[in-house]
Amino acid sequence: MTPRPSRGDGVIVTLLTDFGLGDEYAGVVKGVILGINPSARIVDLCHQVPLGDVDRAGRLLAWSWRFFPRGTVHVAVVDPGVGSSRKILCCEHRGHLFLAPDNGLLSYVLSGARGVRVYAASNRRYWLPEVSHTFHGRDIFAPLAGHLSRGLAPRRVGPPVSSIRRLAEPVPRRTGNGRWVGRVLALDRFGNAVTDLEWRGIQGWGGSGVEIRVRGRRIRGVQSAYSAVGKGKALAIVGSRGLVEIAVNGGSAARALGLKPGQRVEARRIARP
Amino acid sequence: MTPRPSRGDGVIVTLLTDFGLGDEYAGVVKGVILGINPSARIVDLCHQVPLGDVDRAGRLLAWSWRFFPRGTVHVAVVDPGVGSSRKILCCEHRGHLFLAPDNGLLSYVLSGARGVRVYAASNRRYWLPEVSHTFHGRDIFAPLAGHLSRGLAPRRVGPPVSSIRRLAEPVPRRTGNGRWVGRVLALDRFGNAVTDLEWRGIQGWGGSGVEIRVRGRRIRGVQSAYSAVGKGKALAIVGSRGLVEIAVNGGSAARALGLKPGQRVEARRIARP
Amino acid sequence: MTPRPSRGDGVIVTLLTDFGLGDEYAGVVKGVILGINPSARIVDLCHQVPLGDVDRAGRLLAWSWRFFPRGTVHVAVVDPGVGSSRKILCCEHRGHLFLAPDNGLLSYVLSGARGVRVYAASNRRYWLPEVSHTFHGRDIFAPLAGHLSRGLAPRRVGPPVSSIRRLAEPVPRRTGNGRWVGRVLALDRFGNAVTDLEWRGIQGWGGSGVEIRVRGRRIRGVQSAYSAVGKGKALAIVGSRGLVEIAVNGGSAARALGLKPGQRVEARRIARP
Repeated sequence: MTPRPSRGDGVIVTLLTDFGLGDEYAGVVKGVILGINPSARIVDLCHQVPLGDVDRAGRLLAWSWRFFPRGTVHVAVVDPGVGSSRKILCCEHRGHLFLAPDNGLLSYVLSGARGVRVYAASNRRYWLPEVSHTFHGRDIFAPLAGHLSRGLAPRRVGPPVSSIRRLAEPVPRRTGNGRWVGRVLALDRFGNAVTDLEWRGIQGWGGSGVEIRVRGRRIRGVQSAYSAVGKGKALAIVGSRGLVEIAVNGGSAARALGLKPGQRVEARRIARP
Repeated sequence: MTPRPSRGDGVIVTLLTDFGLGDEYAGVVKGVILGINPSARIVDLCHQVPLGDVDRAGRLLAWSWRFFPRGTVHVAVVDPGVGSSRKILCCEHRGHLFLAPDNGLLSYVLSGARGVRVYAASNRRYWLPEVSHTFHGRDIFAPLAGHLSRGLAPRRVGPPVSSIRRLAEPVPRRTGNGRWVGRVLALDRFGNAVTDLEWRGIQGWGGSGVEIRVRGRRIRGVQSAYSAVGKGKALAIVGSRGLVEIAVNGGSAARALGLKPGQRVEARRIARP
Repeated sequence: MTPRPSRGDGVIVTLLTDFGLGDEYAGVVKGVILGINPSARIVDLCHQVPLGDVDRAGRLLAWSWRFFPRGTVHVAVVDPGVGSSRKILCCEHRGHLFLAPDNGLLSYVLSGARGVRVYAASNRRYWLPEVSHTFHGRDIFAPLAGHLSRGLAPRRVGPPVSSIRRLAEPVPRRTGNGRWVGRVLALDRFGNAVTDLEWRGIQGWGGSGVEIRVRGRRIRGVQSAYSAVGKGKALAIVGSRGLVEIAVNGGSAARALGLKPGQRVEARRIARP
C-alpha cells in the first residue's frame, strides 16, 4: 500500500447503488468503509437507481464525477451479476478512481478515453475476510473503497484486464444536413426529459435556429430559461449536463407530453424567425 | 476572503432542496462544496420538498436552523425561477448564514428580524466558471456555500439589497376573546397535522382549558403525550415546534380525520372540567 | 465525563429511525449531535422503518452493527411510546454503544448476550434544556449521542436497570429430524424474502441436500449465486445475513411468489440428487 500524494485524509468516496434506502444495505457499506478509513468523506450519489439498471447507473456516474475533486473514489454497485464470475473493475481516469462491476457501467465514464489501465479486483487481501454470495457491495466494494481512499494504488487490487464490457449505447444519428435524431435518456424528478442530443452539436445553429420534434410535437427554439415561455408551456432548454432537455415551465414535461425514456427526439435546423 | 473566527474547519452546511434522491443532483452539489471546502460537514435537511413549494421549504428551514450550531451555513434551493432574473440572497442572522433564492423562502426565518443585512450573490468570482441555465444549485449555490463555509463574509458575495420578497403568510386570527383561528400547515410522515397555532399563545388557558375544532370535530384538551388518550383516539398535543398538532395515538390523524394543509383549525377557551 | 480511549475524534454515530426523509426530523437530530460533538461522523442506517415497527428496527440494527468499527454509537429511535413513561436505554455491548427506547428494539442485538449493563438515560444534564413531548429523538437521544460519542460513559446517563423489555420473537422450530420451520422476516428492495432460518443450522445437510417449502412451493437446493438458476426462476440462497433467502434470478420473489413477512417457511433435508 503506497499512499499516493493525491489522496489521504478526508478523501471523498461516492456511492451509487440500487440498494434503496429502506434496508440497511447503504448504511453497512459505509460502516465497512469507515472501519478501514475513518477519515473518508462518504457522499451518496444515488441509491435509488432502478433495480439492476446498469445503463441508468452509468449515465448518472458520467454526469457526476467531474464535479468532485480529483482523488475522489467513485463506487458504483448496480450489480445484477453478483455472485457470478463477473469481474469487479478498478481504474484511474483523470485523477479519479472508479470501482464498478464489469457489466458496462463504466461505458459512459470511459467513453472516448484512451490508455486507461483497468484492473480486476481479485486480490482477496483487500476484501472482508468473509464474503457473502449476495452482498459484494459490503464485502468487496466497501473494503476496497476504504483501502483505495487511503491511498492504495489500483494496480494492487488485482491483475490488469485487457478489455471491459461496454454497453451498446445508441448514439444520436445525423440524418441529412441539419437533422439529428436522438432519444429521451431519462426523466428527472421535475418531469424534465433529458435527451442524448448534445447542445454543442447544434449550438452553431443558434437557439432560435432549432426545432425539436418529439411525439409529433414541434417545439421551436432552444431556450436558456424555463421562464422564456409562459407557465405550463413546453420548451426545449440547454440542460445542466450540456444536453438538450424538454421541459414545461412550472410543470412536468413527462406528464404533459407523455414522455418516456427511449422515445425518439429530433433536432432540425430551421430558418430563424 | 477574510476568514471569520466563528467559521473554519468542519463548518456545517445544510441542504434543503426539492431535488429528490433519484437523480444525481444532491450528490453533485456536495461534490462542488467539498471541492472548495474539503472540511465542510454537509447535512441533508431535506431533499424531498414538494416541487417548487417555496412555502414548505421556508417552514422546514424555520423549524430547523436553531438546532444547528452557530456558524452553520444553510443552503436552500427550491427555486422555480432558476434562470430568470430572480436574485440569490445571502444573509447572516443570529450567527447563522443563509443562502436562498429571492422568492420568499427566507420569510419565516427572518420573520420579525430587524437589521439583517441581505446581499445579492452576483459576484461571479464565487460561482463555478461555467454556469448552466437550469442548475444553479450546483453552479452558484454550491460554490458559494463552499466559500462561505470557509469564512467568506456575506458582504463579499455581492451588493446589499434593500428589500426581499416575502410570502403573504396568513397568520392565526384572534376572533373574539378566547378564540384563535388558524390552519393546518403540514402533515408529517406520522400523519400528524401541524397547525400554525402557537402553544404559547393559548398556554395561559391551560391544557385542559382548550378545545380544538377541525372539520366539525371537537377535541378537548391539549395533551403532553400521545398516550394520554386511548389507542386510535384523536388528540391535540403540543408538538416539537411549539405549535399545536392534531394526532391520533398509534395512528394517522391525516387519514383518520381527513386532514389536509390549509384546513381551518380553531382553538377555543373552555371551562376546565 | 471521562473520555474513553476507544472513542474521541471522528466517532461514528449511526441513526435508525422511522422519521422518513420528507420532514426535517433526521436533519435536526444531526444538527444537535454536531453541536455537541462537531467531529462526530453521522451515518444514516435507515430512516424508513415502517412507522412504529419496533421489530423491524430491531432486526435492521442486529444485521448492521457488527459492520461498524468498535466505539460506534448506534442510536435507534422507533419510539411509539414517546412522551410516556417508557425508559430510554443505553448500554455497551462488544465495544459498541447502543441508545434506544425500552420497547424491545434491542432484543435482537442483545439476544444471548450476558452481563451487559444497561442504564436508563434519565440524567437531564445530557438532554437539551427544553424537552418536547413528541420529539425525544432531537431533545434526548441526539444530545446523548453527542455526549456518548465524545466519550461519556454509559453509566453516567442514569441508573442501571434490572431488566429490559424483550420482543416475544418466534424462533424457528425443529419439527422432527431434518425439518426446520421458520418464517419470512422481511422483503428487501429487490423482492428477496429474508427468512429466520439460519444457514449454519442446516449447512450440514449441504446445499443440494435441502428443500425449501413456502406457500405450497418446493424449491430444491440452496444456491450460492442468483445465476445458479435461469432468469426468472425461483431459488433459495444463503443471504448476506447468514439467513436463507428466497429470491428470483433477475426478478422479485416477493411479487412472483406472493411472499409476505410472517409466512411460514420450511427447510427439509432431502436425499441429494
